Amino acid sequence: MSQVSNKVARGAALRRFVPILDWGARYDNAAFTSDMVAAVIVTIMLIPQSLAYALLAGLPPEMGLYASILPLVAYAIFGTSRALAVGPVAVVSLMTAAAVGNLGLTSPAEYAAAAITLAFLSGLILLVMGVFRLGFLANFLSHPVIAGFITASGLLIATSQLKHILGIEAHGHSLFDLVGSLLSHITQTNLITLAIGAGSVAFLFWVRKGLKPLLLSWGLGPRMADILAKAGPVGAVAVTTLITWGFDLQSKGVAIVGDVPQGLPPLTFPSFDADLWTSLFGSALLISIIGFVESISVAQTLAAKKRQRIVPDQELVGLGASNIAAAMSGGYPVTGGFARSVVNFDAGAETPAAGAFTAIGIAAAALFLTPLLFFLPKATLAATIIVAVLSLVDFHILRATWAYHRADFTAVLATILLTLGFGVEIGVSAGVVLSIVLYLYKTSRPHIAEVGLIPGTQHFRNINRHAVLTHPELVTLRLDENLYFANARFIEDYLLARVAKGGIKHVVLMCSAVNEIDLSALETLEELNRRLGEAGITLSLSEVKGPVMDRLKRTDFIQNLTGCVYLTQFAAMQALGPVDGSVPVCAEQGDAA
Amino acid sequence: MSQVSNKVARGAALRRFVPILDWGARYDNAAFTSDMVAAVIVTIMLIPQSLAYALLAGLPPEMGLYASILPLVAYAIFGTSRALAVGPVAVVSLMTAAAVGNLGLTSPAEYAAAAITLAFLSGLILLVMGVFRLGFLANFLSHPVIAGFITASGLLIATSQLKHILGIEAHGHSLFDLVGSLLSHITQTNLITLAIGAGSVAFLFWVRKGLKPLLLSWGLGPRMADILAKAGPVGAVAVTTLITWGFDLQSKGVAIVGDVPQGLPPLTFPSFDADLWTSLFGSALLISIIGFVESISVAQTLAAKKRQRIVPDQELVGLGASNIAAAMSGGYPVTGGFARSVVNFDAGAETPAAGAFTAIGIAAAALFLTPLLFFLPKATLAATIIVAVLSLVDFHILRATWAYHRADFTAVLATILLTLGFGVEIGVSAGVVLSIVLYLYKTSRPHIAEVGLIPGTQHFRNINRHAVLTHPELVTLRLDENLYFANARFIEDYLLARVAKGGIKHVVLMCSAVNEIDLSALETLEELNRRLGEAGITLSLSEVKGPVMDRLKRTDFIQNLTGCVYLTQFAAMQALGPVDGSVPVCAEQGDAA
Repeated sequence: MSQVSNKVARGAALRRFVPILDWGARYDNAAFTSDMVAAVIVTIMLIPQSLAYALLAGLPPEMGLYASILPLVAYAIFGTSRALAVGPVAVVSLMTAAAVGNLGLTSPAEYAAAAITLAFLSGLILLVMGVFRLGFLANFLSHPVIAGFITASGLLIATSQLKHILGIEAHGHSLFDLVGSLLSHITQTNLITLAIGAGSVAFLFWVRKGLKPLLLSWGLGPRMADILAKAGPVGAVAVTTLITWGFDLQSKGVAIVGDVPQGLPPLTFPSFDADLWTSLFGSALLISIIGFVESISVAQTLAAKKRQRIVPDQELVGLGASNIAAAMSGGYPVTGGFARSVVNFDAGAETPAAGAFTAIGIAAAALFLTPLLFFLPKATLAATIIVAVLSLVDFHILRATWAYHRADFTAVLATILLTLGFGVEIGVSAGVVLSIVLYLYKTSRPHIAEVGLIPGTQHFRNINRHAVLTHPELVTLRLDENLYFANARFIEDYLLARVAKGGIKHVVLMCSAVNEIDLSALETLEELNRRLGEAGITLSLSEVKGPVMDRLKRTDFIQNLTGCVYLTQFAAMQALGPVDGSVPVCAEQGDAA
Repeated sequence: MSQVSNKVARGAALRRFVPILDWGARYDNAAFTSDMVAAVIVTIMLIPQSLAYALLAGLPPEMGLYASILPLVAYAIFGTSRALAVGPVAVVSLMTAAAVGNLGLTSPAEYAAAAITLAFLSGLILLVMGVFRLGFLANFLSHPVIAGFITASGLLIATSQLKHILGIEAHGHSLFDLVGSLLSHITQTNLITLAIGAGSVAFLFWVRKGLKPLLLSWGLGPRMADILAKAGPVGAVAVTTLITWGFDLQSKGVAIVGDVPQGLPPLTFPSFDADLWTSLFGSALLISIIGFVESISVAQTLAAKKRQRIVPDQELVGLGASNIAAAMSGGYPVTGGFARSVVNFDAGAETPAAGAFTAIGIAAAALFLTPLLFFLPKATLAATIIVAVLSLVDFHILRATWAYHRADFTAVLATILLTLGFGVEIGVSAGVVLSIVLYLYKTSRPHIAEVGLIPGTQHFRNINRHAVLTHPELVTLRLDENLYFANARFIEDYLLARVAKGGIKHVVLMCSAVNEIDLSALETLEELNRRLGEAGITLSLSEVKGPVMDRLKRTDFIQNLTGCVYLTQFAAMQALGPVDGSVPVCAEQGDAA
């Protein structure tokens, strides 16, 4: 290779891992303006959200802001989605609370250090997955399991925030723990806090549904109406902060955010304590996968609308870099959020630069606005969380899966119940494991159809569903599954039971649906061939696929077969149909695949 | 139902769960004689084996005898195999040592109590699996994984016995630990012990290979020669015991069995300590499954030779009852052994009564022979174990899987290496998990063939393997796998990349190998249909199977399909082949399956 093409190749590889080099070179004024507008809107939305999600994760509010600065810059450099807005999100914040809560730490400083380490570990895992192109692992989370998990998490999160609305204490990682804890403290409810919290919830729901039409009817432009509606949480924050300050509600027991350090994020380092890494690894893996799945779903939905392309393995690198940036700057685990990405997209973000501009906005907030947050009631932040997550709760998936497939339904229901009953980590792990177990169970008891010829065609179908031609001494069974260790014995039992009915001279296994025969299944077929042979019955195969045939040819199975391997089932019936008791003469087996 | 038929049904159900009622009613003199002869031979073989395997499990020798009495009676009542000989076996003894060794117990009494509890738990698990007909779970152990596990266990067991041959101390559950421990003590080798041990090993190997031909050449009948050859271990036991007693070798550092209590098995009860149950549960589950797999393989091999039938779920009940009997009578986990069952079968055992007669023989030994075992050197018992288990070691499976299937090979190699490196429990668990993961990985990246018509037939095959007819504007892809969550995205990416090449008006997905479409995959197909539609390309399906079509009809997918569902691929090509750009008119979709 010449030096020049070497350079080109290196350039292409670099652009693959650092997409900013690609879009950055073509950045212009128009894109800058669009990105700036989007950044302003997302910043307004993100300030209260960042504070609130830090609260949900059990962390000091400034960590939410910090997690919305450098991670956004890192994603702008390494990510491939044009519209994805990265930062703290509800589900990952809840998972952070669960993971760090399990460690039994008492000091807030240790708790924060564990969250930082969790972000670092999660970043490492994502980077490794990206570099080794392991993005496909996320495919093992089925859509229904994700839907069920998000719904259950939304309910858990909303319930966990009720304590702030009521102004009481409550703890727990499961719905029952939370509700029990809430009920045992409910007599201590602070009525002023409740008024602020419930008022904010009502206000925010109204902003979602009623504000935009109202503004439009007042003659505002749709763009402006949209921005004002998105600023609803900021309005709630401002008004309740002012009320709390004006009426000195803090002295009446209203919990407030209090001192938030003023300034840019500090430089932080994760702990390298081996025990901490061991205890957090499982949680970090779950957070990485859930975060990746949430992020990639949003990114792909938005990219498809503009016919752009997402590179999943590069997205892993982008999210990995974001999480490491979070760990280095006092943040906690982040990912691409659904709501804010949609807002970013709708507001016209053209490139990942919009994320970088948002980061500047949040940094400005951290520098100048934090003193104003002193009197912000925690109940207001809880209200913004509740309103945000209740939009995620959607039990429709239960109805959809019930109608379509009981196995899918079982996996969803288990995911929802286990998440509610035992928390996020057990819930989502169980969902994944159950999906796989149900799939394997199904393939271990495959559908086997006895088939016959549809008159006037060369096509064979199930004798129980179609009017077909058959021959009394010839049984053709279509095996509707790969033959592998989990179903080898089932197929053997089925076949021997079918043959035991008597009067059969030839058995043909139609392998059009068999994409693989592993060694366990091959041994079973050899045994079947031997036992049928002893009973004077020939065993043939038809429609064996190329890759399967390639493998069988490496063994002596085909030489020992009492029957033949036929290219088509039609050829098998033509050869075996007029049964005369003679052993069939096979054509060159090599043609058979 | 009338009272009489009620009674008949109850009788049949009873006979299903208590097979002795079935064969016991037809028991006669001839069967009695055959069973007695077999019992005598198996008893002679089982006495040294029982003592040796108890030693391997780290238990006092009498527990090996006790585990060979009541469990055999229980199996005779509840088991279905005519020839299976139940009792302590090598692999399960090693697993017992690993399971109980993990508890860190110091007193021998606690150790024995834990082994008894392990047998009880294992019995419960087997019974529950039998009653709920969960025998299919054993199918998830693939043949290659079992073969690899047995080979590695054999090596581990042989190595673990070297300490008795050398007369030194050594501990460890992995090959490296054992070898390291042996090497660090090797200078303390007792030369007299070594002479006895190595002599016994050499003698027993010679008995296996050379004694029977020699006896035959001396003019003995083949039956008698066989029995004498099987009695080899008894000979070694007798001779080395006499030598040790005669020369007072005990005082020269030869380890002996010592006091073995004389009498019938005591009545024992498992511990009901919840912590102990929790720590032993995983091990008990593995022992149950491994024991069941070993037992059922032997039983089926032997039953097939006499065209008898084994009922796997009833075998679970039989083995469960045996293990509970072991726990109630001072034994430890048992299962059907390979070598002794073959001996039982070859010796002519006709019914499970042979097992009960063997139990009487062992009980007699426990009553009268134990004082004679005082001077029996442990090295002799170790020699019988080594010779027995080395016959299990067979690396052929590595070559067979390498030639046939790399995934199978990987699973076997990992099972062997992990068993040797980390012990039996991790080894076999990893083998099972890896088999499943490799299978899922393969199905997550399925084979997709572009197909065309084989001239002169109605059969479609891969365009890369066969000379076929195709049409430039029509692409037919045969999806060689079930469509489910793990591969939905892969298939989507593949299809969109194929279509991006341009010039295509119709895409047909040939579903002859698709046995299932889950909700995740259905959503992907809907998305594909939409995106292809936007690009002016129709999407059709062909050869959709009945059960899959039933499911699709519950959704609006087929109504929204831009193309049709064709009964056969041939029909699809006839309809779409002469492309005129018009949208195809579909026949009644209900006929399509």
